[in-house]
Amino acid sequence: MRFHYEEIGIATAKNFAIYDITEKVQSAIETSGIMNGIVILSSKHTTCAVCVNENEERLLEDIRLFFLNLAPPGSGYLHNDLHLRKNIPPDEPENAHAHIIAMMLGNSESLSVHDGMLMLGNYQSVLFIELDGPRNRYVSMMINGSI
Amino acid sequence: MRFHYEEIGIATAKNFAIYDITEKVQSAIETSGIMNGIVILSSKHTTCAVCVNENEERLLEDIRLFFLNLAPPGSGYLHNDLHLRKNIPPDEPENAHAHIIAMMLGNSESLSVHDGMLMLGNYQSVLFIELDGPRNRYVSMMINGSI
Amino acid sequence: MRFHYEEIGIATAKNFAIYDITEKVQSAIETSGIMNGIVILSSKHTTCAVCVNENEERLLEDIRLFFLNLAPPGSGYLHNDLHLRKNIPPDEPENAHAHIIAMMLGNSESLSVHDGMLMLGNYQSVLFIELDGPRNRYVSMMINGSI
Repeated sequence: MRFHYEEIGIATAKNFAIYDITEKVQSAIETSGIMNGIVILSSKHTTCAVCVNENEERLLEDIRLFFLNLAPPGSGYLHNDLHLRKNIPPDEPENAHAHIIAMMLGNSESLSVHDGMLMLGNYQSVLFIELDGPRNRYVSMMINGSI
Repeated sequence: MRFHYEEIGIATAKNFAIYDITEKVQSAIETSGIMNGIVILSSKHTTCAVCVNENEERLLEDIRLFFLNLAPPGSGYLHNDLHLRKNIPPDEPENAHAHIIAMMLGNSESLSVHDGMLMLGNYQSVLFIELDGPRNRYVSMMINGSI
Repeated sequence: MRFHYEEIGIATAKNFAIYDITEKVQSAIETSGIMNGIVILSSKHTTCAVCVNENEERLLEDIRLFFLNLAPPGSGYLHNDLHLRKNIPPDEPENAHAHIIAMMLGNSESLSVHDGMLMLGNYQSVLFIELDGPRNRYVSMMINGSI
């Protein structure tokens, strides 16, 4: 039985951007030597999400447009009235919409490892979604299983 | 290797309310003695959610307003035609919108435990979201790892 | 400590359909002999979701109507401009909306196993949601725990 903990770092380049981290997860499974078990992936940020879906560039743009339309950035949120909040970091952006989209997309994914392989379907990728970048971001990854 | 199962009870006070249960999770990790592993948290109810996001009071109100606007309570749902359904509990409320919001927010979260600590970022909390209260609610929590 | 991996197959019958797979999960737990641990369930497809909610037929229809209204099928997505994409399978449908709904509903669920039982509340079922059927679909299931 083995537990392998690692954080995946992603320096995001845009305000809204999607990164395929599948190879990083598979590579960590190989480093860990774990053949059968699970992988738990979770964002360490409140304006990012971890999802599993297809890495097709036109779909990724649809995702961006859909969610920014559903929860648009702007002044229509209490969280964005920065002068009314306590203990605001000096560079705090207006990002309530990013928190809301993150909650819809989800903070964590759990996947199986079988015969040393991450059990994804043909069209599936592990996607890290930046909703309030650019920033340096991290994904917690625990791989747990038998060698 | 150890498995520590516990249920977190929450007596919710309003119809829509958000509770920060981070300290209860961290305290259970300490009780379990587990140093490296995972935590699985899942709601035991169909009109509640378990999420990870920021516990900032104005943001929590934005979340309430956003989701009740997206899926408003009321009569526009088949599930709320109580006279047309079978085996209805005597106190069944009109809560179709709460089921739908629960599905968007998610029933479970998975997190890593490393060196005895729940691996959350600085602004992250584990949030239990009541969507059809007030009621007595429970979250299943399994902590699994090495001591 | 035991790891039991299995895939649940579902031949979906409609374009949008919801299947209760709770009994298949509980049955696999019994086959595995695992008494305390966790279950990780994840869809192997990018236009399906795995959720936990209530299996009530009128609610399931509300879910279908709500999400198809929120992200309607049709031509308003870049992913559906099949002539502009690379490496399209010969039978590729216009399914961008199905990807988006899948991301909102979530690809995976994690649940606890305690005393040999899947820890669900009275009204909870594990639901597999087809968003772009009919097709042959699979859910990855890893059950991990002590016997």
